[in-house]
Amino acid sequence: MKRRRRRRPDPVLVVGSVALDTVVTPAGAVADALGGSAVYFSCACRLFAPVRMVGIVGRDFPEEHLRLLNRLGADLSGLERCGGPTFRWTGSYLNDLNEAQTLAVHLNVMAGYVPKVPDACRSSRFVFLANTDPDVQLAVLDCLKKPAFVACDTINHWIATKPEGVAELIRRTDALIVNDGEARLLTGGKNLIAAGKELLRRGPKVIIIKKGEHGAILLTERSFFAIPAYPVESVVDPTGAGDSFAGGFMGYLAATGDTSLPALRRAVACGAVVASFTVEGFSVNCLCSLTQKDVAKRLRFLRQSCGF
Amino acid sequence: MKRRRRRRPDPVLVVGSVALDTVVTPAGAVADALGGSAVYFSCACRLFAPVRMVGIVGRDFPEEHLRLLNRLGADLSGLERCGGPTFRWTGSYLNDLNEAQTLAVHLNVMAGYVPKVPDACRSSRFVFLANTDPDVQLAVLDCLKKPAFVACDTINHWIATKPEGVAELIRRTDALIVNDGEARLLTGGKNLIAAGKELLRRGPKVIIIKKGEHGAILLTERSFFAIPAYPVESVVDPTGAGDSFAGGFMGYLAATGDTSLPALRRAVACGAVVASFTVEGFSVNCLCSLTQKDVAKRLRFLRQSCGF
Repeated sequence: MKRRRRRRPDPVLVVGSVALDTVVTPAGAVADALGGSAVYFSCACRLFAPVRMVGIVGRDFPEEHLRLLNRLGADLSGLERCGGPTFRWTGSYLNDLNEAQTLAVHLNVMAGYVPKVPDACRSSRFVFLANTDPDVQLAVLDCLKKPAFVACDTINHWIATKPEGVAELIRRTDALIVNDGEARLLTGGKNLIAAGKELLRRGPKVIIIKKGEHGAILLTERSFFAIPAYPVESVVDPTGAGDSFAGGFMGYLAATGDTSLPALRRAVACGAVVASFTVEGFSVNCLCSLTQKDVAKRLRFLRQSCGF
Repeated sequence: MKRRRRRRPDPVLVVGSVALDTVVTPAGAVADALGGSAVYFSCACRLFAPVRMVGIVGRDFPEEHLRLLNRLGADLSGLERCGGPTFRWTGSYLNDLNEAQTLAVHLNVMAGYVPKVPDACRSSRFVFLANTDPDVQLAVLDCLKKPAFVACDTINHWIATKPEGVAELIRRTDALIVNDGEARLLTGGKNLIAAGKELLRRGPKVIIIKKGEHGAILLTERSFFAIPAYPVESVVDPTGAGDSFAGGFMGYLAATGDTSLPALRRAVACGAVVASFTVEGFSVNCLCSLTQKDVAKRLRFLRQSCGF
């Protein structure tokens, strides 16, 4: 990160879920643990740039989680709190560490939730629209004032049930960050390179395809970049890897204010490294104790692992 | 390859199969096409170093294939020719381009075949033992005179049916080159990094795990290297990708006489690049028309695709 310019990092706006997760993996299980896309994103992003979180929790949301997010420096002015119970997700990785099996979803306060982006956050230059109903993502996009760089995520459920909404979302964002299965479903093709190129033709200048243990690839109109995953020997819980990848990626871009190709590559590396910590523990346990020094050490390792 | 020393490349000895393959993929089909591990290996290796092929064919083996192998410079003094029909393999990739479904195997002249390594070839310094019965691979190993670097391959069938033979083979070779599924079956673990480290403890100084479209990783006691696959948009036929990877890898080492870590990394890159050509056509169609210039171009591309 030696080429990072000395400047005040832009804050990054993330709109996503705040959840209480119950997860079982070959390494163990947790119940009602802190989770959700906006949480994982924020815990990763804050290592590089300040983060503004927009989401909703219920009255049952533990105060200790709010204290943790505050302590990590997240701006929670966009975090609504209302009457019902908090969004809950229950998943298992017992069959396959690369893919969650959803056992239960309780939308609770998320049912019908329309994110309210505080006025002060609408001029955020760097924005991440985490996975949710594409119509909601588009509504958020509509209320932004001239963002410099917007990235979004989506999942198979929305690709299958709201293809037009997803298509418009993709057309209007600068970067699409999806996993390999989503890239294949979006394009109907099996070859990831061809899928990435097809997605580029649909609008975004930047396509990032995350491949779990196989790393990630970055495609732009004129370039191709591939990075391996940091070699984690013992994956405890993959939940949140994708959102923390996005957090590291967007955080690096906002910290440098640079979206050139070399910066995009370094941002992908930051995302890969942060995600490697996420999977080494349940919930945000590893992520929230992480320092810039830890990230820098793995970035160096990853850089040395690629050259020939 | 600028660091390659100016020297006469060592010849590489390969012991493996020569086959007539019938293959169907989403891109089409071929019947009785030139194939086999020793053939793919040789067509790749000859781009870097001379190759000596030990194997067996039947009387029905087309003269044009022999002429092709001769034209590519392969030393065929170890290629036996006998009465029965040539070894035949029939496979399909219609369900999954990453994994062949074997539809039929006719061993024919390969049944009970014990490779006879010509005296002049026994002092080869660089040797590749392609997949076959581990007892046969060990017998070949026994007749070699002080090889400098021996690499071997194996498959699920032998890992499951002759585990002791495979274990002894692995213990006695310098490099094990397997795919991800084989690495997992050999170790009983799902995590590839942990599997690679476990395999290192079983003897070889070098473990290479091939991951198809996701590239390959190289592990030694003190280092980790990962390379993406060259981004091929249209895979025609994956048959022989692994053996041509091994051919590029061993060819580069023999050409330079260098088995240091930087050389091993460059050799893996050569293997990855050569394999990327293999899959772009049926049989050895793309491989046999390849030049060093083609390889150098993709090596440059791959190098530029990795840095950050």
